[in-house]
Amino acid sequence: MTPVVGRKATGLVAATFTPLTPEGEINLSEIRPYIDYLLEQQGVKSIFVNGTTGEGMSLTVEERKLLAEEWCNKGKNKLEQVIVHVGCMSLKDSQELARHAAEIGADGISVISPSFFKPATADALRMFLQEVAAAAPAMPFYYYHIPAVTGVNLRSRDVLEGIENQIPSFHGLKFSGSDLMDFGQCVSYCPSHWSLLYGIDEQLLGALAMGANGAVGSTYNYLGSSVNRLMSAFDKGDLPKARTIQFQMQDILCYAIKLGFDLAVNKQLMSEVSGLALGPPRLPLLPCPHPKALSIAQRLQQILGEQ
Amino acid sequence: MTPVVGRKATGLVAATFTPLTPEGEINLSEIRPYIDYLLEQQGVKSIFVNGTTGEGMSLTVEERKLLAEEWCNKGKNKLEQVIVHVGCMSLKDSQELARHAAEIGADGISVISPSFFKPATADALRMFLQEVAAAAPAMPFYYYHIPAVTGVNLRSRDVLEGIENQIPSFHGLKFSGSDLMDFGQCVSYCPSHWSLLYGIDEQLLGALAMGANGAVGSTYNYLGSSVNRLMSAFDKGDLPKARTIQFQMQDILCYAIKLGFDLAVNKQLMSEVSGLALGPPRLPLLPCPHPKALSIAQRLQQILGEQ
Amino acid sequence: MTPVVGRKATGLVAATFTPLTPEGEINLSEIRPYIDYLLEQQGVKSIFVNGTTGEGMSLTVEERKLLAEEWCNKGKNKLEQVIVHVGCMSLKDSQELARHAAEIGADGISVISPSFFKPATADALRMFLQEVAAAAPAMPFYYYHIPAVTGVNLRSRDVLEGIENQIPSFHGLKFSGSDLMDFGQCVSYCPSHWSLLYGIDEQLLGALAMGANGAVGSTYNYLGSSVNRLMSAFDKGDLPKARTIQFQMQDILCYAIKLGFDLAVNKQLMSEVSGLALGPPRLPLLPCPHPKALSIAQRLQQILGEQ
Amino acid sequence: MTPVVGRKATGLVAATFTPLTPEGEINLSEIRPYIDYLLEQQGVKSIFVNGTTGEGMSLTVEERKLLAEEWCNKGKNKLEQVIVHVGCMSLKDSQELARHAAEIGADGISVISPSFFKPATADALRMFLQEVAAAAPAMPFYYYHIPAVTGVNLRSRDVLEGIENQIPSFHGLKFSGSDLMDFGQCVSYCPSHWSLLYGIDEQLLGALAMGANGAVGSTYNYLGSSVNRLMSAFDKGDLPKARTIQFQMQDILCYAIKLGFDLAVNKQLMSEVSGLALGPPRLPLLPCPHPKALSIAQRLQQILGEQ
Repeated sequence: MTPVVGRKATGLVAATFTPLTPEGEINLSEIRPYIDYLLEQQGVKSIFVNGTTGEGMSLTVEERKLLAEEWCNKGKNKLEQVIVHVGCMSLKDSQELARHAAEIGADGISVISPSFFKPATADALRMFLQEVAAAAPAMPFYYYHIPAVTGVNLRSRDVLEGIENQIPSFHGLKFSGSDLMDFGQCVSYCPSHWSLLYGIDEQLLGALAMGANGAVGSTYNYLGSSVNRLMSAFDKGDLPKARTIQFQMQDILCYAIKLGFDLAVNKQLMSEVSGLALGPPRLPLLPCPHPKALSIAQRLQQILGEQ
Repeated sequence: MTPVVGRKATGLVAATFTPLTPEGEINLSEIRPYIDYLLEQQGVKSIFVNGTTGEGMSLTVEERKLLAEEWCNKGKNKLEQVIVHVGCMSLKDSQELARHAAEIGADGISVISPSFFKPATADALRMFLQEVAAAAPAMPFYYYHIPAVTGVNLRSRDVLEGIENQIPSFHGLKFSGSDLMDFGQCVSYCPSHWSLLYGIDEQLLGALAMGANGAVGSTYNYLGSSVNRLMSAFDKGDLPKARTIQFQMQDILCYAIKLGFDLAVNKQLMSEVSGLALGPPRLPLLPCPHPKALSIAQRLQQILGEQ
Repeated sequence: MTPVVGRKATGLVAATFTPLTPEGEINLSEIRPYIDYLLEQQGVKSIFVNGTTGEGMSLTVEERKLLAEEWCNKGKNKLEQVIVHVGCMSLKDSQELARHAAEIGADGISVISPSFFKPATADALRMFLQEVAAAAPAMPFYYYHIPAVTGVNLRSRDVLEGIENQIPSFHGLKFSGSDLMDFGQCVSYCPSHWSLLYGIDEQLLGALAMGANGAVGSTYNYLGSSVNRLMSAFDKGDLPKARTIQFQMQDILCYAIKLGFDLAVNKQLMSEVSGLALGPPRLPLLPCPHPKALSIAQRLQQILGEQ
Repeated sequence: MTPVVGRKATGLVAATFTPLTPEGEINLSEIRPYIDYLLEQQGVKSIFVNGTTGEGMSLTVEERKLLAEEWCNKGKNKLEQVIVHVGCMSLKDSQELARHAAEIGADGISVISPSFFKPATADALRMFLQEVAAAAPAMPFYYYHIPAVTGVNLRSRDVLEGIENQIPSFHGLKFSGSDLMDFGQCVSYCPSHWSLLYGIDEQLLGALAMGANGAVGSTYNYLGSSVNRLMSAFDKGDLPKARTIQFQMQDILCYAIKLGFDLAVNKQLMSEVSGLALGPPRLPLLPCPHPKALSIAQRLQQILGEQ
């Protein structure tokens, strides 16, 4: 089997929030303006949908299909990449979503480790990933590593070991961990057609130094424009400027963290900054009080205005 | 609304494994002999299906329905209680399973905390539970607390606070934690029609002293007969005898733990002891090597034969 | 070498606070009235000094010697047992304190696992304990297990394995963990001259059912009288009464926990209840605001008055 | 009070191992050749003594004094900086060591958070540090942050808040954590006369990008020469070369980790590589089997020879 030929994901990838109506149902009508906002206001050309930021695990399989389809349809000829997260607790559900992503013309699929039952070894995890990938063998496949959320502390480098033999469509990694040795070991191992996308936005600069090809994260929904300048400065070797922007991002996040920052607040913050109507999160997350998100949005504007 | 009238779950409740074919598909034909085995060989009269032991989270919604239906049908007029676990990462999936459990005549439903997105407070968790319970308001409802698996460390006592106002069908707790202060606080809070079922089999005796009404666990599949004697000894005030049986159970488990004990091993052990064909676990769990389960089964027979 | 013959520690053992002056120096003059208070007001006849409750790790070796000496001197012919905790991060310091405890006529010594550098295996920990015990071979020796504080999660049962060969003076265990399987396995392993003392006060009843010989804890400083009645009820087989008292203790602690309960608050609470002047804790602990301890003391009186 | 004027620590700082005799006593005679080795073979000009690598917490106060004195004496006119770690579980012991470090002419002192009793807030920790610093007010003072070892997860940025008001001699940070947002926030906060030294050797490159002034670590004992080239490449903007060296270091460490890597192995590895006789570690650490360290040393030579 020849490797899947797919464009390599680079640059910034926004992990999109899932628009819900005030009643908590998925709101497909907000997807077109969301894509336009990312392209026009943030300069972000790729998206990662139905992932952690998108509350994928709180959605039904049917809802995830409807959303993925809308993101792909509305992003066609506009976005560079639409990567659909198809990870579920159940392998069978993941396989169904993988097949569906292939049918709707997604640019890639990504899978997080199951976390209720946790794979005991890198081998077990790789077998799980392999079974999902095999359901959509032509889809570029990205493993999604986020140990703080899943509690699965297997080193990514161990998961990558020989993975191209088991998953010919393997294309890269969304690495949302702070262990930059593990990340560096992935960089030094990976062939040139893989993408190593870093996922902890507030320490992106460290990962770029270690060799990241790009970044996936929730803050690029509303800070994409700033972080595009960070990446551009880094590419030109202007570390002081890159640091200045990174520190601004950190200042914004630290302000948010002191107020209490979780996915619900993050989602409401995006609504405040973008003007989109993303709606509430779904239970077990509780809606963010409006003034809290507003306060963070104001601080964001203030800090970015200072630059 | 008047409280749901349901029989109170007491005594031992086996958390059943899910029979799979060698190919990993659900195997409904093994359910009838499974129920007979529990009744005839172990003296266990109630079951908890599609829970952690049953790999519920690795199954699709459709599979869970088929299984729940078969357990209810085959258990009718034989078992005292069939409690169906309907917890999912997605509230909507849980609601669908709750409605289904009501339709098929289950004796109760139980819900674990969602664990990918974790409720931040006891209030948030209670709201999630309420939304599920409201989908099947006539079903006796049990909250399932298992912090070591979910990573949700909210105290059960806090979750119970005022829960009868939000969930009139609330009926009790499956408490699978080692914090006996929290458990004791639940005991002292609970009205007489609730059941407080303890879920860490190897320290049941401590929970009985603290006031447990019964127990739900995986080991009761193959140690139910022994533990029924433990409970009977405890009820008669014969602590030395109860301890002897508890220590035997612990000896068996410690032997298993030294060999490497997880749900896959546990499932294979049940096949060895019972003669049922429960099949492999589903990924991300890997099948247990046959000799390992056999060795544990032999040790089990040896220890119980010593009594 | 013949085993050390020592009286077996049973019943309640108060883990004493260390009296400090308002300036933070050790206050030996408060020790005599402290002992009298325990005997006369709480009916507690044994003590465990310089342990976790006693802020042993925050004291210098010299201070620990002075304190141990005073506790032994003032307790002579009054107390049944004075057990001196001699655990330190440095083996040499522990050995010096062990020798000193023998010189001053302590009834036993106890050692916690070092926790900055953690023993990797039960063997390594047993070797550390052996080296301390060898410095005072005639002192009854108790291993002190408290994984939540030390982060050392080695199972006690594994530490006990063959320990009498390495430590002929071994006499028992202070088990401050919630894993009652591990505790039960210690009970079933231990010869009759060992003491298995349980150390999580709020779930003592569970450990008594599992076979505890007694209990060491900080709350026995001010709740000893109540818990003596709990133990007496348990001994008579009156579980409902034992539970009632256990639940009262839990109510008090839960009230304290909601207000914020740590060692500093605990110490101030003891001053409030007993009238002793125990002074502040030492840094890195901060003194407890007076109203907080007072509020807890009032709740304590109220709950115990309800009985 | 005017700020302490001290040279700013930059570049590589070796966290030294403590030489012990085969019998486990401190071995002062190995210190002179150790310093010469660092200077001549590794190009490392500053040291951090009695810290984690130096098993400081396993030593007595007296031993730590003797060692600190010898390091200062033998390093005089040779080394740029001798920073003495004076952190202890007991504030009084730390104060005594701080005074002693001042007497013997150390270039700075550093304090780790106490970890048996943990400070509950950044304020409590800052007060502890202040009390130590006040005992040696003319000594440049470095806070040592290493949450994976201490279990103290207070953010360094919060500890630094206003610290110059409480500790006029404050001079910087040894940051041994993987949270580069916290590290970045320290960088953006710190005045130019502070040093921000990074302490997780295997991800140094990420921290340099974020603004680290230098690095303190154990691997610089035997990889100092390589990492000096890494830092030089980074300073010249040659990221590919810096990455190559960082990845080599990671390859060595990953090889070691697969064999089982702890402080005992690390110490023996240094003996193998340097030819120094550093002796065994002290209990609770167990000596490393010779072949294991030899195997790692050979892999190290092989990887570095490949460059």
